[in-house]
Order: sequence, then C-alpha cells, then structure tokens
Amino acid sequence: MATVPLGVRSLGAAYRSGALTPHDVVDAVLARIAERGDDAVWISRFTRAELHEQVATLPAGPLHGIPFAVKDNIDVAGLPTTAACPAFARSPAVDATAVRLLREAGAIVVGKTNLDQFATGLNGTRSPYGACESVFGGDLISGGSSSGSAVAVAAGEVAFSLGTDTAGSGRVPAALNGIVGLKPTRGLVSTAGVLPACRSLDCVSVFAHDPSDAADVLSIVAHPDPSDAWSRPVRGNARPDPLFRARLLLPDELDFEGDTAMAAAFDAVAARADAVGTAPVAPLREAGDLLYTGPWVAERLAGLEAFLTEHPDDVLPVIRAVVEQGAGFTAVDAFRGRHRLQELRAGTARLWDRADALLLPTVPTTFTRAQIAEQPVARNLVLGRYTQFANLLDLAAVAVPAGFTADGRPVGVTLLGPAFSEDRLLSAAHQLITREAA
Amino acid sequence: MATVPLGVRSLGAAYRSGALTPHDVVDAVLARIAERGDDAVWISRFTRAELHEQVATLPAGPLHGIPFAVKDNIDVAGLPTTAACPAFARSPAVDATAVRLLREAGAIVVGKTNLDQFATGLNGTRSPYGACESVFGGDLISGGSSSGSAVAVAAGEVAFSLGTDTAGSGRVPAALNGIVGLKPTRGLVSTAGVLPACRSLDCVSVFAHDPSDAADVLSIVAHPDPSDAWSRPVRGNARPDPLFRARLLLPDELDFEGDTAMAAAFDAVAARADAVGTAPVAPLREAGDLLYTGPWVAERLAGLEAFLTEHPDDVLPVIRAVVEQGAGFTAVDAFRGRHRLQELRAGTARLWDRADALLLPTVPTTFTRAQIAEQPVARNLVLGRYTQFANLLDLAAVAVPAGFTADGRPVGVTLLGPAFSEDRLLSAAHQLITREAA
Repeated sequence: MATVPLGVRSLGAAYRSGALTPHDVVDAVLARIAERGDDAVWISRFTRAELHEQVATLPAGPLHGIPFAVKDNIDVAGLPTTAACPAFARSPAVDATAVRLLREAGAIVVGKTNLDQFATGLNGTRSPYGACESVFGGDLISGGSSSGSAVAVAAGEVAFSLGTDTAGSGRVPAALNGIVGLKPTRGLVSTAGVLPACRSLDCVSVFAHDPSDAADVLSIVAHPDPSDAWSRPVRGNARPDPLFRARLLLPDELDFEGDTAMAAAFDAVAARADAVGTAPVAPLREAGDLLYTGPWVAERLAGLEAFLTEHPDDVLPVIRAVVEQGAGFTAVDAFRGRHRLQELRAGTARLWDRADALLLPTVPTTFTRAQIAEQPVARNLVLGRYTQFANLLDLAAVAVPAGFTADGRPVGVTLLGPAFSEDRLLSAAHQLITREAA
Repeated sequence: MATVPLGVRSLGAAYRSGALTPHDVVDAVLARIAERGDDAVWISRFTRAELHEQVATLPAGPLHGIPFAVKDNIDVAGLPTTAACPAFARSPAVDATAVRLLREAGAIVVGKTNLDQFATGLNGTRSPYGACESVFGGDLISGGSSSGSAVAVAAGEVAFSLGTDTAGSGRVPAALNGIVGLKPTRGLVSTAGVLPACRSLDCVSVFAHDPSDAADVLSIVAHPDPSDAWSRPVRGNARPDPLFRARLLLPDELDFEGDTAMAAAFDAVAARADAVGTAPVAPLREAGDLLYTGPWVAERLAGLEAFLTEHPDDVLPVIRAVVEQGAGFTAVDAFRGRHRLQELRAGTARLWDRADALLLPTVPTTFTRAQIAEQPVARNLVLGRYTQFANLLDLAAVAVPAGFTADGRPVGVTLLGPAFSEDRLLSAAHQLITREAA
C-alpha cells in the first residue's frame, strides 16, 4: 500500500500545492488500471474522454478531483447497474444519493466494481465477471461482496470507493486487502439508488486507505435523505478527535477455525489495545446467525423473488441456493427472530455503559479462491463470523488493517460501537494504526 | 361521569385537606363495586382485608392512596393473570414493572379487570367472564380489549386504571365510556410483566377521568426498564403545558360506516379545533391493515402458538380463528410488510413538520353487544379503523371524550402525534375538553 499515492487527503494536498491537476490524476488512474490488466475489479467504467469531461465540469468542493469507484449495486447515471448479474442490468436515470453527494463535492466517478452477485456473499468469487484476487496475491480471495471496490482502493486504482455492507461486505474485503472499511450506522448514509439485499439492514460503506480519508468521505455522504424511508437523522458527527482515548472491550472467546497464525496476530493487537474489560461473543454470534441461517434470509428473497422466478438460469446456482432458503421460514419465525433480536440488542446496548468500542478480528481466517470453490457456502459463513451481527444489532463498525500473520497473510481487526459512534470508532482506529506502526 | 368523585387529583386534594383517608376510599370503592353488582368488570380482586392491609403499609408518594385497576394481562403479585382465559391462568411472583412503580408511588391495586381474551379484540364481548356493557347502557359495547379497566374508571369504581393497547385497546373503550385513554409511545412504559399480544407493538395504557389525571399516572410509569428489551429511553416529558397551543391536522376523508350522527358529532368537534391543514388518511389505514389482516397477525400467533396447540378447546373460537390466520403468512410476507411500513412511517413522520397532532374520530361508529354477536369479526375491524395504525407508525395517542351524538351515544376523538409527544397531546386534549365544555 505504501506505493499508492492516491489518497483523499494526499491528493487534496497535491492539488493545493499545484503539484497535480485532476486531469493528471485521471490519466494516472487509467494508467494504473491498464497496468493491472484484467484483475476482475471493474464491471463498467467511464471512457477516458468521459472522465476528462467530468473533470472539466467538476464543481468546487471538499473532494474536488478525488477519483472513486462505486460497487455495481449502487446507481451511477450513465453506467448500467448489474449487481453482477448481466440479465439484471438496468440503466439508472439518476445517481444514488450517496454518489450524487460525492459528485456535488467534486469527486470523480471512475466506474462500477465487481461484487458477489446481488451482494450475497463475503468471499468475492461469486461473480460472472470473475473472482478478484486479494492484492496480496497467493490466490487469496479478495473477500466480498464489495470485492472490486476494496481491491480498486488497495491496488491504488482510486482514492476511495463505495461498497455496501449488510453482513460484512464492507469489512471483510477491507481486512483481506489491508485497507480501512467503514460501515456506518444503518440509515446514516442514504440507500436511495442502492439495490436492496436485506433492505432493513443494508448500509452504504466506504473503503479508504486510512481512517482520516474515510472520515472525509463519510462527512459528505452522511446526510438525511427524504427519498429514503430508512434514512435516520444524523446524530453526533463523523469527525475523529485525535485526542479521544477509546475504552475498548476485548472478546471473551474467539474461534479462528484452527488458524493459529491468525489467532496469534489478533492476540498481539489485543495486547497493545487499551482494554477495559471483555464482552461476551456468544450473543453477537447468535444475532449473526439470524441473517444467513435464520429468518432474515427471507428478506433477501423478498427482494429477489420476482427476478428469480423469471430468470432462474441467470442467477448463479450458489446465490439461488442461498436466497431460496428464505422460502423455508414462516412469518411466525420472522417475528420470533425479531423478538430474540430485541433481547440481544438490549444486552449489547449495555456494553456501551462501560466502554466505547469492542475490538474483534474482522475475519477468523483467510481462504484461497480454490478453498472457497471446495466449500462455497460453509467457508463463506466462516468469513462472516465476526461481522454479520453488526447491522442486526444496530452497530457502527470500522475495519482496520493490522499487519500480517507470521506466514504473510493480511490481518484485520474491527472496532464496533453503538449507532452513531463513527467519530469515536474512527479516532480509535487511528490510534490503533498509529500504535501498530510505532 | 359527573357523579364520580374518584379522580387522581380530586382524591389527592381530599387527602391533603383531611376530608378523606385511604381507608375511607377503599370502603367507598368496595361499596361502589357492590352497588354496580355483576357488571363483568372484574376477573379477580383483593379482599377487603387485603385492601385495608395494603393501605396500612402504603408508601408515601405522589399517588398515595389512589385506587386503581389493572387489566388482567398485566401481572399483579397476589392475583392470577388469566388474560381472560381460565386455562391460561398463572400466579405471578412479582408485579409488572408499571404496577410496581405505581405501588411504590403509593397507589392501591384493587384488582384485575376483564378483557377480550388475550387482548385480541376491540369490542369487549370476547371473554368467558362476560361482556361488559358501556356505562351509557342501551346494550352498547364497552369496547375492548381493555373493557373492564375502562368501565371501572367510567363507573367510578377506581380513580384510574391500566390497560394495554396494541391495536386500539386503550382508546376504543375510552371513547365508548366517555373517559380519557392515553396510549403512550411504544417503549415509554415498560411491558415487563405484561402478556405479549404483538410483542413489538404492545403498550401499557392509562384510563383516567381527565388529561391531568392521565399525565400524573404517566409521570410515574414512564420509566426506562432494564428488564424490558423493548424499553426506550424517555425523551421529552409527560407534563402537559396549559399554555401550549397545538397545531392540529384534520383527516382528509372519513368513513363512519353510514353513522351520520357520529359524522356530524365529529364534524362539530373538528370545526372548533385549531386546524392548520389536513392529513391523508389512506396511508394510516394501509398501515393499520397490516395488523389484523396482514403479516402482524403472525406476531400474535408467535406468542400463542404453543398454548393454542396444547389447549385448543380452552380458547374462544373467535380468538382462535383470528390468531390462526397468522399461519397463512410467510417470512417473505413479513419482511415485505415491514418494508412497506417503513415507507408509510417516513410519510407520516413528515406530517409533524407542519403540525403537532392529528385529530381523528376514535371509532367510526358504535355497536350493541347484539350487533357484535351478529358479525363478530367484521364489526370488530370497523372499531379499529382509526386506531390500529398508531403503534405500527410509532405514534403516541390520547383518546378524549367529546360529548354525545344527537341520538345520545358517546363520541370520542383521538389526538395522535409522533413518538414522545405525550406532553403536547395531553395539553391539546385538555384544551379540546375545555373548549367542548365552554
């Protein structure tokens, strides 16, 4: 990552000093993309001419001239929205609200990125547009579902990107590519113009090189939206405070799926953290299990049922198999799940009486693309073990890179806090990274 | 009602002046109950000796010596909780939180009141303990499900009472008995110790003679409860401000089921209100339809399924028929209903940009017990037309008596506002009643 010059703040500084112009940066972006070749990151992009035309009419704004990528389940006017399903492609007339806000702030939309089809998956291999490899190579998966958006940032093709995050799609690929993945509070960033996965849980997420860049992007996209029924009034603010010292909780137990190198790497991070106590992991995992193996999978089916019925052969078999499980749940199951979730939420809420954030591994282990192909559903579930409860429990989260295992694989940790705690989480993330580097 | 001396504030004043003691009041309560005879109000009561013993150990507090009744789906230690189903009876070891708070404030629990079985119904006839008649006679229904709690207050047997309100059970019987029915914001009053109907929507409600009495009771029971996962932090306060002038919205269309006398009575109230505009009723009715004729009926089944399976013959056929409809909904239906509800909520929330409250009839019309027996399900649904959306849309509501129709039946109107607007609604209710009397 150290070789990547494309950051939000670094570019802003280069523009202010006159060292670069947005036209230079567009050319650099295209050169970097060409240099990477077919990395399965992009589903569609604006042409060189279109990008220079965007630059020619860029509004002034806090993100003036900053190039970004957009996950292909989020609308960008002028490019199709495919959700990684060619037969599903639509041509949106207008930008998603988050994209519009970024454009109004002067940012440059480069194109649309690959994803696990219909944002259903956490591994990045479930796409007819190819399976991204982690920027760290070795056939390691990129993670998903926001695979292309994470790799585009990590590989230095753009300064930041938008993903979405229902079960961990904005955090898992951050961990597997060594970047920051900010999953804001549900409703803080508008989901208008985003294809629903689980509509009541979906979030737009931000991938960036560091917490400060993520905070700058969040400050633009965190905005109430009358056109989104799930939008919530902004509370608190997105600005990290460098002087804030977060009180952290550590997990009382962890299951790294036998990955002792990953366990040792997490323990090392935890040992350096300012922990004030431990939090039980079992209720988090119970909440998370409601999502893919419980009634919330019916929420995915509620969104996709019509398309699945009309286009059964256009959906990847693994996606169809996962989503169709939703038909096995009754409304009584859904309400019972909701009741249990409320109890788990109330228990989690009490954690914040004694701490600001909870530190967890982002993923228990890593897999190669070949390993995912062997067990495409079971290993996908493993990846979500420490992410998939966050939206159900109404938490905010920041996934932070934390070095490498002894055998050279990326390590990621996540800070989780209550709704609207982004400022505190980003501050804590900054301190964690600073300490890591020291 | 003018003959009833038992009010919260009136008794407080009588105690302070020394004109009465709580022992006198207990005797008066028992005399009044005896005088009314078998009015189907009570399912169980403390004995005279037990009541005088309660009085002997009453704590000092803002409700010292105020006698109240408790709907029999709310736990009172020392009396069974039946939910109007004898086979269901349990003996709770502790009071429901709301009851405990009232006892700690010095109030006297007289006993447990009749209800539509399992709080499922709005008419008051669905009980093996008998069908309460409205205090206005003429075979008019009391309304339900909090039938006994409403009649106990209206008939002057207690100073106030607790009901519950999921679809209108705390408002419909207020209207049909000429008293105030306060349905607080979901989660403002703990539901710990309350038998769930639709757990995510259930509220404890207050019946009282006037808005000031209701406010006094609310100020005691509105309290966060760590033992209730649905409890929400209190925002605002319960104190009506006599100087506050509510900006009211009127409904854009109403359907009184052909009851022209009721329509004329509502129009007269509306004409005297300070209306600043109109609000569309269609979205409210669409939200309300989710409850008994949509997926939320499965939430009732989620609570009762085990008992229904084990005791099929112990549940009234009409209750079983209603609740078992819940089995006809899938989890996909439930999530689709939730998605639509979110849109309806967002639309309703915008009403409060231009007004403080919405004025609606509480019921479109009244029925006799004989008329309900003819069409027990369809006429029950009519009763909920202007109440059953409130909890789904996260509204607070106060049902207010508003005189009589030209043919002598009670008229009730309801003020509805956003969550945590109880203080404004109670102020508006006070002004409405004052104006009515002038």
